[in-house]
Amino acid sequence: MSEVANPGEGRTRAVVEAVAPQVDGGRFPAKRVRGDTVLVEADCFADGHDAIAAAVLWRHESERAWRESAMTALENDRWRGAFRVTELGEYRYTVIAWVDHLLSWRRDFARRRDPDDIRIAALVGAAVIAAAAGRADGPDREQLARWAARLRDEQDAAALQRLGLDEPLASLAQRYPDRQFAFTHAELALFVERERARFGAWYEMFPRSASPEPGRHGTFRDVEARLPYVARLGFDVLYLPPIHPIGRAQRKGRNNALVAAPDDAGSPWAIGAAEGGHKAVLAQLGTVADFRRLVAKAREHDLEIALDIAFQCAPDHPYVREHPEWFRRRPDGTVQYAENPPKKYQDIYPFDFENADWRALWEELLDVFLFWIGEGVRIFRVDNPHTKPFAFWEWAIAEVRRRHPDAIFLFEAFTRPRVMHRLAKLGFSQSYTYFAWRNTKHELVAYFTELTRGPGREYFRPNAWPNTPDILTEYLQYGGRPAFAVRLVLAATLAASYGIYGPAFELAERTPREPGAEEYLDSEKYQLRDWDLGRADSLAGLIERVNRARRDNPALQADDSLQFFPVDNDQLLCYAKHTADRENVVVCVVNLDPHHAQSGWVALDLPALGIDPATPYQMHELLSGARYLWSGPRNYVNLEPQRAPAHLFQLRRRVRSERDFDYFM
Amino acid sequence: MSEVANPGEGRTRAVVEAVAPQVDGGRFPAKRVRGDTVLVEADCFADGHDAIAAAVLWRHESERAWRESAMTALENDRWRGAFRVTELGEYRYTVIAWVDHLLSWRRDFARRRDPDDIRIAALVGAAVIAAAAGRADGPDREQLARWAARLRDEQDAAALQRLGLDEPLASLAQRYPDRQFAFTHAELALFVERERARFGAWYEMFPRSASPEPGRHGTFRDVEARLPYVARLGFDVLYLPPIHPIGRAQRKGRNNALVAAPDDAGSPWAIGAAEGGHKAVLAQLGTVADFRRLVAKAREHDLEIALDIAFQCAPDHPYVREHPEWFRRRPDGTVQYAENPPKKYQDIYPFDFENADWRALWEELLDVFLFWIGEGVRIFRVDNPHTKPFAFWEWAIAEVRRRHPDAIFLFEAFTRPRVMHRLAKLGFSQSYTYFAWRNTKHELVAYFTELTRGPGREYFRPNAWPNTPDILTEYLQYGGRPAFAVRLVLAATLAASYGIYGPAFELAERTPREPGAEEYLDSEKYQLRDWDLGRADSLAGLIERVNRARRDNPALQADDSLQFFPVDNDQLLCYAKHTADRENVVVCVVNLDPHHAQSGWVALDLPALGIDPATPYQMHELLSGARYLWSGPRNYVNLEPQRAPAHLFQLRRRVRSERDFDYFM
Repeated sequence: MSEVANPGEGRTRAVVEAVAPQVDGGRFPAKRVRGDTVLVEADCFADGHDAIAAAVLWRHESERAWRESAMTALENDRWRGAFRVTELGEYRYTVIAWVDHLLSWRRDFARRRDPDDIRIAALVGAAVIAAAAGRADGPDREQLARWAARLRDEQDAAALQRLGLDEPLASLAQRYPDRQFAFTHAELALFVERERARFGAWYEMFPRSASPEPGRHGTFRDVEARLPYVARLGFDVLYLPPIHPIGRAQRKGRNNALVAAPDDAGSPWAIGAAEGGHKAVLAQLGTVADFRRLVAKAREHDLEIALDIAFQCAPDHPYVREHPEWFRRRPDGTVQYAENPPKKYQDIYPFDFENADWRALWEELLDVFLFWIGEGVRIFRVDNPHTKPFAFWEWAIAEVRRRHPDAIFLFEAFTRPRVMHRLAKLGFSQSYTYFAWRNTKHELVAYFTELTRGPGREYFRPNAWPNTPDILTEYLQYGGRPAFAVRLVLAATLAASYGIYGPAFELAERTPREPGAEEYLDSEKYQLRDWDLGRADSLAGLIERVNRARRDNPALQADDSLQFFPVDNDQLLCYAKHTADRENVVVCVVNLDPHHAQSGWVALDLPALGIDPATPYQMHELLSGARYLWSGPRNYVNLEPQRAPAHLFQLRRRVRSERDFDYFM
Repeated sequence: MSEVANPGEGRTRAVVEAVAPQVDGGRFPAKRVRGDTVLVEADCFADGHDAIAAAVLWRHESERAWRESAMTALENDRWRGAFRVTELGEYRYTVIAWVDHLLSWRRDFARRRDPDDIRIAALVGAAVIAAAAGRADGPDREQLARWAARLRDEQDAAALQRLGLDEPLASLAQRYPDRQFAFTHAELALFVERERARFGAWYEMFPRSASPEPGRHGTFRDVEARLPYVARLGFDVLYLPPIHPIGRAQRKGRNNALVAAPDDAGSPWAIGAAEGGHKAVLAQLGTVADFRRLVAKAREHDLEIALDIAFQCAPDHPYVREHPEWFRRRPDGTVQYAENPPKKYQDIYPFDFENADWRALWEELLDVFLFWIGEGVRIFRVDNPHTKPFAFWEWAIAEVRRRHPDAIFLFEAFTRPRVMHRLAKLGFSQSYTYFAWRNTKHELVAYFTELTRGPGREYFRPNAWPNTPDILTEYLQYGGRPAFAVRLVLAATLAASYGIYGPAFELAERTPREPGAEEYLDSEKYQLRDWDLGRADSLAGLIERVNRARRDNPALQADDSLQFFPVDNDQLLCYAKHTADRENVVVCVVNLDPHHAQSGWVALDLPALGIDPATPYQMHELLSGARYLWSGPRNYVNLEPQRAPAHLFQLRRRVRSERDFDYFM
């Protein structure tokens, strides 16, 4: 049900339809971040020829009273208004519309020609204005009453018409509209998060490999020592795979071997052992106190720690013993392990969300989030949420947010589109995407157009990852170091949120476990690795420049302005992002071919970018620092994979200074 | 709110989203006609990898119990089901989905290879099947219990696998699904009307001009005499402008003159005089009893009489005296007439729907509909509904339909798109359209694509009129007789419902009141006219053939299959309609140029029309009777305006007879 009129009031003549933003008829909130200006549009109209007025009503969930701002008519009965969100949490908003008799009267009054007609119409207007006076107080009331009286008394038609069309008095009267028969749309919701929910560069690393001594298990202290490096590269979020005790029963060995050697570290996602589960820390990493210290140290580097939440258990997780009812039993009495017949994953016990004690399970899992929030974590990367009930996530995220509206949830689900959209709608802040497998121009344009123009734009925030510990794409395997550079620039500029799994990424680690596999050989998931961060061929320098460009250019900090432009070469991809006021415009041209130089003519839509097509403009290339003078929409670009995978242009307009010389800003 | 799960039941794992048809999130019903098969689609999915099942539930409003039919999966979690509507009135429907443990078990069971694994899994299946047996009765219960027992007892893995995958037993078990944790979408509504709401040819005529004696006012008896003519032309509905007493005060003269001559007939839309109003009949036409007789006579010719409902009053309408509170007063005490300053329409008093006595006004206007239903009318053409509140129409139409679900409402509103769509959504069966002003190929393709593919397809049924008493388009004024032929064929084939204002149309009446006007000179709205139906240049013969083709070809009786095809000449328009089973396919090619012969190559999408591109097919031209053998998608067409404005092909497939010769059917 998308509307609430005045039930039982047949004199409600205005109608409000098709309010945007709106997700599934109001079933889910749209999403914004703090500081956003929310544009609200609606179809507003009434029967007949009377003028109408419309307004957006909104309030933060903590407020009782509605705030209000007038809407203005666009075309075809579409109206637009706006409000700014300054607090975290849920906002409620709606649109109200009503027949505005004063506005109708003035419009008609201006068109009247016959003096008698004007004199009679003046009396009609006087009555409408007197009614407005009755709704006003103090000096406004007096002033409006005086206006009405003069319209009643004046006899000269020309003078009457001037008086009736007085603008300041009309504006005053508009402040006391007659809304007894107004139409109010059903309330809608908007969830406001902090900026990091929309914009951030993520760096994933395994603490186990953070030790400077080859072969020694890394610790949280080692991660602390790595913080300056990650910060220098310009990342905002440092994301750690699960940090909990790792199961010993059925532990997987190196390269996912079925049987582990005695010294194999096991997978961090096989959570839980005798010493603890989801609220404990793997002893080799340190203690909970060490972790808390890491969180604090990270803050000093403007880094936030994101934790991995994987709701599944190793066979020796304490839950299995303490809450046998949370797991499914096999007829032989053993606990049901994860399986996808004929494959078996005997090191993992999934929770049975259909168990009779599901409420206790839900509460305990919520408590896992709350525990780590207690230790300073505010960002969670949730593992495989699509294998747990949607209703659980909707409840758990709402419960966390009710207490901590600054919590951010990224979900890891590489699954079917509908499932991913449901997870995004029910509350997750961000989502992993299919980006890793979108390589060609056609694929990238289609996918990012869908993400930024489709209905998901109101709730689905992409976080683009060129690689993860599970995903080493063919493009990276075969494209060499230039391929990593291409994918980095694409991820960091197409998506306001992106991440890499390092140091594998910056060191262009690209050997698969076997031909055709997307898994890494000697993956850190199952063993420690020793990374040489100082290697000459590291992509750290490029990453630093790209992240610097992201921080310096607000255009790159949101996705809704993304626009693709034609290039006469299918290996070159050209697109731009801009701020709402077009003060900041970034144009990217990327060579998708990691093997060969490619050149072509790009064709920009200059008016869309706020550029006068007749005036030259400067293209400031942010990776090299070079500056080019371009003019007109068509310009030539040449990109050599070994030298530069992409141009990342900040567009600078020519400005005439006060001292009468031109410069670009 | 688009969904209702099991509130408080966290084990509800399936989800149903995006059910279609659905209008404004369920705020309004979708529309169908009796006999339709309603396809219902929805996104259905659950967390994890379990199989799900889904079904459509539906019931007629008069029934308590839901009926049910299984849905099948299409692509990407989209499911489809269907039900047939056999009764008039409202249907309720929804979609239910649930995790199907038996289906999941069987899918996995088929993939198991390890004998021990198979034996344990068989026990799991036995438990699921035993639970199904518990929900069954009688022999089904026994049979399922036996199946479970055998799965428990058998030890041979191969035999177990065969037993577990038994199809008939599985089908039996599916009849007793476990739906305790099912997800049910919010109920949606569908309004079912009789076929005439979707398909019908309308003929509008003024009874005042039906007299065979020039100068004598026509009567209902004269209209009776005209019935065979209208029926021979193949029309289904005979629509009469208002038949009520016409106001004398401020009566308009011929050609809308401000002052009427004493013998001027006045406009039928200036309703009401001393002798009666909306429930009375103009004495010159006859009596209410005569009207009832006309309605009955029309039925004998398979014609239905449609009445014009225009809710407005002449100054001498009895309502003005009896219910002064229903009208707005001017400050000088007179009643407010209709105006659009500086224009005044002093012969018309609009109702004031904001008056305090609005409930009584609504009841009285409803009673107008009920009065004429009492006299046998079931089809209403409603004049200018967009100048009365939407809420009134929604209520009034629902009240009429509650008593008379066979009532049909066509609304006349040539106004802004949003307003027209709202009227369609709130209950009107059909709408006038912008067809009269869509002349070029681009305009026609864009408009009819929007009508048949846009969201309005669920509720907005176009009724296409090439002319009306108010609309004589420039195309008709300047295109001569061929222009009328072109517009007839377009209206009658693009839209399942269409109408003409005759005899002006078939006699190609095309002189405007003044240059640039769309009004007729000497319009019947203000005077009697004498029409020579037997004129040699009458289009009656063409109309008869076109209406015959409409009746013979079910493809032309609905709009949802409309598809346009390319022609390499912008003056030629090519399109097709087909039945759902493609047993009946009609292809039209129309020459939009009324002045010159035009030729070109049409390019049909043969697979879309159910034609094997490798086999010749016959094009049976229904206006001329000619038959052409075509093969392949590209074929040549030449149309001369004076000879034939269009080809109306029935497509006949080649069929091999039992006696081994080919024929086309």
